Amino acid sequence: MKLGLIGLGKMGYNLAQNLLDHNHSVVGYDVNAQAAKDLQGYNPNAIPAETIEDLVKQLDTPRVVWVMVPHGIVDNVLDTLSPLLSEGDIVIEGGNSHYKESVARGERMGQNRVYYYDVGTSGGTEGARHGACFMIGGNKEVFATIEPIFQDLSVEKGYLYAGEVGAGHFLKMVHNGIEYGMMQAIAEGFEVLDKSPFDYNYEEVARVWANGSVIRGWLMDLTERAFSKDAKLEGIRGVMQSSGEGKWTVETALELQASAPVIAMSLFMRYRSLEEDTFHGKVVAALRNEFGGHAVVKK
Amino acid sequence: MKLGLIGLGKMGYNLAQNLLDHNHSVVGYDVNAQAAKDLQGYNPNAIPAETIEDLVKQLDTPRVVWVMVPHGIVDNVLDTLSPLLSEGDIVIEGGNSHYKESVARGERMGQNRVYYYDVGTSGGTEGARHGACFMIGGNKEVFATIEPIFQDLSVEKGYLYAGEVGAGHFLKMVHNGIEYGMMQAIAEGFEVLDKSPFDYNYEEVARVWANGSVIRGWLMDLTERAFSKDAKLEGIRGVMQSSGEGKWTVETALELQASAPVIAMSLFMRYRSLEEDTFHGKVVAALRNEFGGHAVVKK
Amino acid sequence: MKLGLIGLGKMGYNLAQNLLDHNHSVVGYDVNAQAAKDLQGYNPNAIPAETIEDLVKQLDTPRVVWVMVPHGIVDNVLDTLSPLLSEGDIVIEGGNSHYKESVARGERMGQNRVYYYDVGTSGGTEGARHGACFMIGGNKEVFATIEPIFQDLSVEKGYLYAGEVGAGHFLKMVHNGIEYGMMQAIAEGFEVLDKSPFDYNYEEVARVWANGSVIRGWLMDLTERAFSKDAKLEGIRGVMQSSGEGKWTVETALELQASAPVIAMSLFMRYRSLEEDTFHGKVVAALRNEFGGHAVVKK
Amino acid sequence: MKLGLIGLGKMGYNLAQNLLDHNHSVVGYDVNAQAAKDLQGYNPNAIPAETIEDLVKQLDTPRVVWVMVPHGIVDNVLDTLSPLLSEGDIVIEGGNSHYKESVARGERMGQNRVYYYDVGTSGGTEGARHGACFMIGGNKEVFATIEPIFQDLSVEKGYLYAGEVGAGHFLKMVHNGIEYGMMQAIAEGFEVLDKSPFDYNYEEVARVWANGSVIRGWLMDLTERAFSKDAKLEGIRGVMQSSGEGKWTVETALELQASAPVIAMSLFMRYRSLEEDTFHGKVVAALRNEFGGHAVVKK
Repeated sequence: MKLGLIGLGKMGYNLAQNLLDHNHSVVGYDVNAQAAKDLQGYNPNAIPAETIEDLVKQLDTPRVVWVMVPHGIVDNVLDTLSPLLSEGDIVIEGGNSHYKESVARGERMGQNRVYYYDVGTSGGTEGARHGACFMIGGNKEVFATIEPIFQDLSVEKGYLYAGEVGAGHFLKMVHNGIEYGMMQAIAEGFEVLDKSPFDYNYEEVARVWANGSVIRGWLMDLTERAFSKDAKLEGIRGVMQSSGEGKWTVETALELQASAPVIAMSLFMRYRSLEEDTFHGKVVAALRNEFGGHAVVKK
Repeated sequence: MKLGLIGLGKMGYNLAQNLLDHNHSVVGYDVNAQAAKDLQGYNPNAIPAETIEDLVKQLDTPRVVWVMVPHGIVDNVLDTLSPLLSEGDIVIEGGNSHYKESVARGERMGQNRVYYYDVGTSGGTEGARHGACFMIGGNKEVFATIEPIFQDLSVEKGYLYAGEVGAGHFLKMVHNGIEYGMMQAIAEGFEVLDKSPFDYNYEEVARVWANGSVIRGWLMDLTERAFSKDAKLEGIRGVMQSSGEGKWTVETALELQASAPVIAMSLFMRYRSLEEDTFHGKVVAALRNEFGGHAVVKK
Repeated sequence: MKLGLIGLGKMGYNLAQNLLDHNHSVVGYDVNAQAAKDLQGYNPNAIPAETIEDLVKQLDTPRVVWVMVPHGIVDNVLDTLSPLLSEGDIVIEGGNSHYKESVARGERMGQNRVYYYDVGTSGGTEGARHGACFMIGGNKEVFATIEPIFQDLSVEKGYLYAGEVGAGHFLKMVHNGIEYGMMQAIAEGFEVLDKSPFDYNYEEVARVWANGSVIRGWLMDLTERAFSKDAKLEGIRGVMQSSGEGKWTVETALELQASAPVIAMSLFMRYRSLEEDTFHGKVVAALRNEFGGHAVVKK
Repeated sequence: MKLGLIGLGKMGYNLAQNLLDHNHSVVGYDVNAQAAKDLQGYNPNAIPAETIEDLVKQLDTPRVVWVMVPHGIVDNVLDTLSPLLSEGDIVIEGGNSHYKESVARGERMGQNRVYYYDVGTSGGTEGARHGACFMIGGNKEVFATIEPIFQDLSVEKGYLYAGEVGAGHFLKMVHNGIEYGMMQAIAEGFEVLDKSPFDYNYEEVARVWANGSVIRGWLMDLTERAFSKDAKLEGIRGVMQSSGEGKWTVETALELQASAPVIAMSLFMRYRSLEEDTFHGKVVAALRNEFGGHAVVKK
């Protein structure tokens, strides 16, 4: 299949290579023009586009355009793309969008009879390159048109048509919420080991847990890999950034009155890790001093 | 009433003054001999004892001895005290003991027909001085003998015979667990204010919340006082020490299969505040780097 | 002072009586016309209005109108009220609005040069009647005009001009978040007592904790009162409803990247209490069965 | 190798079959004599023992005896076994013991110069049968003697000599703590899906997450399997039992002052699930009624 791909960054470029490996033609566009040229160097079935307009022109109708750009500029890209498309064209948005945005975009694109698919992608950059996991929302009938793309890009059984527009990014959001909780659980385990009276080799611990245990899985494989590079992680600080989906999951849980303590705590511990000191800590310390004369730590 | 008081530290000395103000005679002993002399200086009804043996000798049977010493040396004091006592004597242990220790001590003292009362004390040093809150476990019938002491030392309605030995310290333990949760709740509120788009005067906020609101109470009064001394608490660090009862409450909740998420989280945030950086944070940061190429913060 | 009061429900009626007791004149309106007549019966300084238009007509400029209606109809009332007002008039909105709504309403009213004050009220219905706590946002200079109302309605020191529009409801929101945490902390304490080996009288426990302890305060007074009516709370179910501000606090904490584990857990336990059984529980039970053959509880 | 195996229950029998498949001889004993006979029926290299004494007699020195019995009777078995052993014999204890018990047992056995290995086993009954994960503590030099057993019983890389006695069960304990957190994270994700506006097929969701996603792993495979049997888990109740290691992990975290909010919350949600109604819920409901007149749900 020939399809357009807007955005050739960390994820998009890897997806493009993955597509090319599976004999698809990719008309590629990125604000950094070199990326599309590099892609052509990798495989001549990659056709660089100089603009989004140029990209659309090089596709046959019904066109298939995959948008893989940072969260903040999806709407800009859609604003440019939308007037260039025709009835029956298909837009796949594969970034980390909020599902409500996807629902709104789907409605907007639907007004021009363009089919909009919101696709959550998991598996990291490695997955994008060699086989990822896709959670897909959008029109059910038309999905058959693009299904071969997902069959090729994913590992076996690694894609799901999940429901109407929004269902894809909702599922990806929840996936990331679970990921937060699982990572924090693993991390707490190593925290307890690190304070234990025993002298564990963490790489070996991760390896044994990755082989045959109940908690084996890709995150444990990655834990092993991380410790193989830095046995005690002495080179890094425990600052836990977050990119939004965990927060969205907690917000959604609040909205749906779903109890999600573990996902919420995982997120709060991340926020906590961004601060050297906390105001709430000062308040508790000051209170202990007031009622019990307990010493405070002066600055 | 004439009673012995072993331990004239921060809490014990204040209790002694409070007793003397209410016309009790206090035979006082402390490892720091000066404390008992100072107490006599405050009120001649205070009689310094040079040793625990000396203290016991100066009391009439049935003797009443209040032990108010740090948690770690209660058993030492009881070992010294026990052989000096006679059947029918009364020991009041007013420190922060674990209730299971109190149950064991009560049994031990009971073998010599000494009545043992475990007394949890709340209200801080101010309360000890001017009227505190006492939670009391021990023999129900004999309690009438010592009730006048508690009537005088406490604020109105501020003492409770709570049940058999152990019931006092169990109640105090749970009280402190609640205290942890309430303090953390207040502190989180100010944390949110501190990150808010508004420019609040925290002393004024604490004052208005201390007057007429649902969350008014002594902790809010103390919050106001703390902010009156340091408007933004800039002089202290948010290091939240803990002295054991919160941990005991969570351990007891685990043992009783009681769900106590708020008290547990209050405690964990205290532990977290003791560390500049965390191992669990490193693990999560390393994992994010492994699967998504997300940058880590280098040391 | 003569002022209009729209909304004579549980809170509004009590505030009106409180105002009348302090020699203010109240032009009262409620959809239930009987309420305004009852108020006049209580004190002839209460003037019933048949409509909002009628209410506005009976006030002198600059008018002061207090809006005390359920959260969902504030905008309706303001839509009706706004065109009837003149430059320099003052609107006080005393309900439980989201602070962002208040900011928006303040801007809208400001376009007509009407001064808008967002006022968070705490202290329950008793407070409204006999002295409450008010957190007030709005124009600083004009506040002097309405300050006497708050002096009269509040307990001593029980009102605060907190900053620009929005600052009042933000403060009230956080107050309620703290309240959630404090209530859950108290409740967990009694949960531990209830599973303990001791046989406590909960009313007596609440009483002793309400007198002289660190955790004394109004919530503990109310705890005592609740147990005085039903010693083991056997007549009610532990269903914990919530009315929004706790959720807003957690959402705001997420937005501000503030760590608020205790407030969040308090809210999640409320959500949990609304369900007889949970889907997450089923998933965990099914997983335990899958890997370990652990028995599940059949329906 | 020829070794003794005491305990042929769910785990022990599967381990025995696994050993026999790898050409080891197993002298088996169980209180239920039929189990050892069944094992012999499975493979004639299994020799039934009628008593523990009989089992010991049939082994050559240095003997290797694997104890795989329920947590509560390990000490009984060791009491019987210990006097029958000789210097240099080896005992492997493969159950779910607390690591402090293992340390104590190791010391006790060491007094008779018997080598004691505490072995945590993960992978469920399937793992025991076809390849599990073993975390092993004990004497480092002598470990080579028994290492071939673990090589054969485990999946590749699925065993670890982790350190001195206690290190095995400590690691298994923490493994289970992580497991609690991961299971609760997965379960919360499905809870959010279940309350979402979308109509997901949970088996398909688990399948896509199990293939190529960041959160893939054995627990997700099992989730898929569970939903394949009961699409909405309608046949079971969400009662989450626990067997101790999660609680031990939280207790250990408390002792080590390690912050483990996610593991703790996972446990508390399990405790919560054991109750139809809660006392803490009643307290909060009663308090809301007291201060705000909010309706309670009557029994």
